[in-house]
Amino acid sequence: MVINPPLQGQLRLSQTTQTQEASQMLLQEGRRRVQIEGISPEIDCGRFPIKRTIGEGVNVEVDMFGDGHDAIAGLILYRKEESPEWLEAPLTPLVNDRWQGSFTVTEIGRYLYTITGWVDHFLSWRKGMAKKLEAKQDVAVDLLIGAELVEEASLRAGGDERSQLQTWAQTLRSIEREDFPILEEKVLSQDLAGLMTKYPDRKFATTYEKELAIVVDREKARFSTWYELFPRSCGEPGKHGTFKDVEARLPYIAELGFDVLYLPPIHPIGVTFRKGKNNTVVAEPGDVGVPWGIGSLEGGHKAIHPELGTMADFHEFVAKAGEYGIEIALDLAYQCSPDHPYAKENPQWFRSRPDGTIQHAENPPKKYQDIYPIEFESEDWQNLWEELKSVVLFWVDQGIKIFRVDNPHTKAFPFWEWMIGEVKRDYPDVLFLAEAFTRPKVMSRLAKSGFTQSYTYFTWRNTKWELTEYFKELTSYPARDIFRPNVWPNTPDILPEYLQHGGRPAFMIRFVLAATLAATYGIYGPSYEVCDNRPLKPGGEEYLHSEKYQIREWDLNSPYSIKDLIARVNRIRREHPALQSNNSLRFHHVDNEEIICYSKQAEDSHDLILVVVNLSPYHKQSGWLQLPLQSLGLQPDRPYQLYDLLNDAQYTWRGEYNYVEINPHVTPGHIFRVEQK
Amino acid sequence: MVINPPLQGQLRLSQTTQTQEASQMLLQEGRRRVQIEGISPEIDCGRFPIKRTIGEGVNVEVDMFGDGHDAIAGLILYRKEESPEWLEAPLTPLVNDRWQGSFTVTEIGRYLYTITGWVDHFLSWRKGMAKKLEAKQDVAVDLLIGAELVEEASLRAGGDERSQLQTWAQTLRSIEREDFPILEEKVLSQDLAGLMTKYPDRKFATTYEKELAIVVDREKARFSTWYELFPRSCGEPGKHGTFKDVEARLPYIAELGFDVLYLPPIHPIGVTFRKGKNNTVVAEPGDVGVPWGIGSLEGGHKAIHPELGTMADFHEFVAKAGEYGIEIALDLAYQCSPDHPYAKENPQWFRSRPDGTIQHAENPPKKYQDIYPIEFESEDWQNLWEELKSVVLFWVDQGIKIFRVDNPHTKAFPFWEWMIGEVKRDYPDVLFLAEAFTRPKVMSRLAKSGFTQSYTYFTWRNTKWELTEYFKELTSYPARDIFRPNVWPNTPDILPEYLQHGGRPAFMIRFVLAATLAATYGIYGPSYEVCDNRPLKPGGEEYLHSEKYQIREWDLNSPYSIKDLIARVNRIRREHPALQSNNSLRFHHVDNEEIICYSKQAEDSHDLILVVVNLSPYHKQSGWLQLPLQSLGLQPDRPYQLYDLLNDAQYTWRGEYNYVEINPHVTPGHIFRVEQK
Repeated sequence: MVINPPLQGQLRLSQTTQTQEASQMLLQEGRRRVQIEGISPEIDCGRFPIKRTIGEGVNVEVDMFGDGHDAIAGLILYRKEESPEWLEAPLTPLVNDRWQGSFTVTEIGRYLYTITGWVDHFLSWRKGMAKKLEAKQDVAVDLLIGAELVEEASLRAGGDERSQLQTWAQTLRSIEREDFPILEEKVLSQDLAGLMTKYPDRKFATTYEKELAIVVDREKARFSTWYELFPRSCGEPGKHGTFKDVEARLPYIAELGFDVLYLPPIHPIGVTFRKGKNNTVVAEPGDVGVPWGIGSLEGGHKAIHPELGTMADFHEFVAKAGEYGIEIALDLAYQCSPDHPYAKENPQWFRSRPDGTIQHAENPPKKYQDIYPIEFESEDWQNLWEELKSVVLFWVDQGIKIFRVDNPHTKAFPFWEWMIGEVKRDYPDVLFLAEAFTRPKVMSRLAKSGFTQSYTYFTWRNTKWELTEYFKELTSYPARDIFRPNVWPNTPDILPEYLQHGGRPAFMIRFVLAATLAATYGIYGPSYEVCDNRPLKPGGEEYLHSEKYQIREWDLNSPYSIKDLIARVNRIRREHPALQSNNSLRFHHVDNEEIICYSKQAEDSHDLILVVVNLSPYHKQSGWLQLPLQSLGLQPDRPYQLYDLLNDAQYTWRGEYNYVEINPHVTPGHIFRVEQK
Repeated sequence: MVINPPLQGQLRLSQTTQTQEASQMLLQEGRRRVQIEGISPEIDCGRFPIKRTIGEGVNVEVDMFGDGHDAIAGLILYRKEESPEWLEAPLTPLVNDRWQGSFTVTEIGRYLYTITGWVDHFLSWRKGMAKKLEAKQDVAVDLLIGAELVEEASLRAGGDERSQLQTWAQTLRSIEREDFPILEEKVLSQDLAGLMTKYPDRKFATTYEKELAIVVDREKARFSTWYELFPRSCGEPGKHGTFKDVEARLPYIAELGFDVLYLPPIHPIGVTFRKGKNNTVVAEPGDVGVPWGIGSLEGGHKAIHPELGTMADFHEFVAKAGEYGIEIALDLAYQCSPDHPYAKENPQWFRSRPDGTIQHAENPPKKYQDIYPIEFESEDWQNLWEELKSVVLFWVDQGIKIFRVDNPHTKAFPFWEWMIGEVKRDYPDVLFLAEAFTRPKVMSRLAKSGFTQSYTYFTWRNTKWELTEYFKELTSYPARDIFRPNVWPNTPDILPEYLQHGGRPAFMIRFVLAATLAATYGIYGPSYEVCDNRPLKPGGEEYLHSEKYQIREWDLNSPYSIKDLIARVNRIRREHPALQSNNSLRFHHVDNEEIICYSKQAEDSHDLILVVVNLSPYHKQSGWLQLPLQSLGLQPDRPYQLYDLLNDAQYTWRGEYNYVEINPHVTPGHIFRVEQK
């Protein structure tokens, strides 16, 4: 069993060990005068990596200073983990001993970065010389000091630059010391300074204690558009749908603009204590069961539910989806029905009760007798971990690279950190989405433990204040470096109250918010696009006739369907880099609590998108919105143009205050491309 | 050469090493389900210790959570560094997975602390049982599960408690399962829960990766009252003062209430390039020189300036001071005059110039030819460090335990961390005060590197906003845990503008602020108490006729002297624990920018001090101040009494708003003891 990432509680760095190690090292060198602290990003003292996608920048800040008044210089060091060679990126001072630099990650996999800094005697000398020359002081000895520094640097340089530096040293030695203008020109020469910057004396450089890690993913980790659907509801009316039926649905999904199609578990479904329609405790004959009740005589997590098709059908379906630019994501639900082969073959992976039975899931007083949770305190945990990992690798072998993980917060954290690390070491393009709607620190810890994307509280954030505060938090350090939000306005488990009461406008509003606030979002359809809003019970969030328990028929051509809006917005997302990442998100003031306004701007292009949404699904709202023109790159004294990408309308605005009016029965809002001609 | 604390840049924890170590450990145990993060206090990822004085509490907070819904429990582990045994303090949950606990440090030296947490199956069981019993579910198997947990705990218990637990296990096994009231009483028994809390199953406990350090000092590190004076100005008029003369001054200093008497360097003073009066470049015959120009033919840092007396005189003086409750603090200025023995015997400890001379101090275009700075990049740095340390140990041998360190920010940080660590390992009662008025991060780093106390920017913080913001920062985490402010309204180098222009009231105001805002403060006297306010040049901060360059005569009985105020305030400080630490400092609103109001409250007594100061030395000010009565421990609906400790006046206030009026020509303000009868 090969074990990869460091796990908490196992790695112990006692002060004593640190002291002994430090003593050894200090005996070698006590002259490192530069201090390095306060690096950002650095997650939990470097315990966890930050996340990036290919081509993204890593902006590093650090407090760096030496003793006394000597000048200092420093660099970012970074490398692909497997590469022995550090690359270097310059650091420049901001204010108050804070320095800043950046580099770009260009390959998927793991990178490391750290900081090095040193007292730069040439820089100090040059700074002092400028002042001495201005004061017309005698600099005879200083010139010799400078010559020595340049000579030493020449030994670190090669070829042509070595001889240039040697010439410079001679110049400094032989200079006419009373000839101030010429002296100044030579001593303060930019050519000399430039050469010397290339060959600093780093023998007493301080390098930061830790090498900090980055997990670099493919682009879909940052920018993806998800559609969840139950394959069994894709068949002819009255029949259990199959992979073939989902194949037939692919053109529709592609037309809507989705690039990830996520399927609930496709494995055999247990029969013991199977739940009936609308979550009734006893299933009736013909009830299809809950896909998350995994495992039957027909197999477990590596098998396919026979009613969906064969493994060959699955392969064909995955390939077909690929032709439409759609990647299939599978559900990874580590739990078993009582009929799962594990329950018979590996009962040691479950908790046994004194009466010899296996402990079913419970949340007292509720009992879930159709589910056996995995016992992560099993004596046989090593084999258990290996088996659970092998489930992922099995589906990777079938061409699956995205896993939506069911309830990861009810499985042991060390397992996730190990498993995801193991899988990504060999398959760095595999992505894991954490379905955890639980406490904030638990969700954050799952993201830190390796999950590529995470479900969010978006589902329940409705007011302007809630949305603003929450998305500010998600796009600020440290969350923005570890937690990639995947926002869902609905899921098979959650029909939020807002959607129950707001009618079709509510579905459109929440859709536009999801698709523009976050670079990655998903909907559970066709329920969503046809505006299915009937709850099982008033006040609850469960769907009536939930697909979790039964097959549903959907009218994809319903006049209520918002599919045209969905298709249009997804096209806007593809065409506008501004909407493909989250870090530039900024909220703008509107003098009406029912109207939210925010902008996104692409890092390396001029793409500026301004979104204005009416949060009320009931009433027309209007207000004055205020834009910080200068910081958006617009000249305040000139007009600017807005093109509404939702309906091709055009406006010309001038100044920071402008009026908007939105009728939710006509449109949820505006997605403006902003330009100044 | 024994080297103690970990130093940055020497200790390298690469990801690779961490991974390998973690792999080894994880192979042993992957079932640690509790996660521990976000500990406070933890300074720079545990790189530096926090500071406490004997008897102080350490309040620890931590994020702690497990997977799923199981109950968890945890403890603080702490110990004296040299003790092999961990002590334990309980952790209790706050909100949002944050836990809190505390312990008290009772000995000087170094402590370590960390956190341990575990999934507590008994607590989970008890929680579930409460709900199942309420729902009147069949709990037959659950009772057996509980019995097993209790039996296992009995094996961890000893003697009487073991048999109690065994009896409880039998009770659970034999309980009448239909008899709900009795069942509930037994299952949820507090006695059983209490016993089980004492013997939890910690076999899968997670212990935080790091052991965090505390440096515990004697009380004077936190609460001390400093007086700085030039011994040579204590003599008969026209004569160079001696230790004998300072001895004669001790009753005066004691009467004023100071407990630390800090002397500028007492070593032989160089003659080469000696500075004259008022910092003139050339000394005249008879000029006494700058005490910080250390070293002459008569010796260096371990010698005494002959004009002050002999080593025997010094010993007698130190002993005499002790009789008055006054501890002597020496100045530790690591720099040399050109006449210092080091310059001849150890020229390798200085920077040599190409012309064979030693590099003098400079800050171009200024030159300080009377000073040779130490070269911390010397090839011979190990011997240099040992020699510098030996200076401290030499004076420790002479009975000195407090060092005020001159310009520590111009010496290498690794040296301080090593030297202070070394000295305090053998002499944990030695205190170091950092005289650094430099950039914030440098000052903070010196404190982290081991300095017991630090000079502050108080000297230049005059307005209510400046004082409030600065002291809020100093008394907030993390500063409050690492940086002990020692505030000075003046020093021999700094006569602030406020004092130059505000007359005697300015001296009284700044004094009361210093002595009540900070548990530790100092004044440079007799200059301060006699209100010496003449600058060398208008707009500058140097004193005219500065004692740095010449002997001064002071009229201690000047009618302008504020010595009575000083004596009174220092007595108030001694009598009121509230003023002996900083952490309880809170500012209160006054509707006049010229009046500042704050309170301090002792941790373990009812001592509540309220200070109100008029910041204008010119005009009478009045205003309404607002007190948060409830949070100060006062009942809002009842009157409370204020005793002005400065003049024994008494007031009765009622409600949160009250009126104050202060005439700076009568009093700088009020120091109220607040009480509710």
